[in-house]
Amino acid sequence: MTKVKIYVTLRESVLDPQGSAVQESLAKIGYNEVSDVRIGKYLELQIGETERDIDTLVKEMCEKLLTNTVIEDYRYEVEEAN
Amino acid sequence: MTKVKIYVTLRESVLDPQGSAVQESLAKIGYNEVSDVRIGKYLELQIGETERDIDTLVKEMCEKLLTNTVIEDYRYEVEEAN
Repeated sequence: MTKVKIYVTLRESVLDPQGSAVQESLAKIGYNEVSDVRIGKYLELQIGETERDIDTLVKEMCEKLLTNTVIEDYRYEVEEAN
Repeated sequence: MTKVKIYVTLRESVLDPQGSAVQESLAKIGYNEVSDVRIGKYLELQIGETERDIDTLVKEMCEKLLTNTVIEDYRYEVEEAN
């Protein structure tokens, strides 16, 4: 099994209302030194035995289902098979 | 400014219906070799000049606001000040 970690973030150019809301909440409870809060998705998954190339597989899954490529970027890390 | 990356994940013991739904969707479009899909939050934020210790600050923010410590775990990375 190969473990893959995927990080999905909004593009820099895209407004992040959720991030702004969290930033305001943090300021309200005394954490004024915090700025530029950006919130995204973090996925972990396992890939079993397969003939297919892992990188191709992960890119396809990200671009077909896991991300909205119009407004989101993604990066991923493949951990050595365990 | 110091950049901090925070990864919030559901505890292993907690069911992840969202993860299961994504796994089923991936299988429907042909990615049957994928299993154990777990979905969490990924946050990036900047911390400005402060007297306070960064690690203490991040732990406090995570435990007070950014995570539900009953069902979620978190880990974070502090990048050198830029």
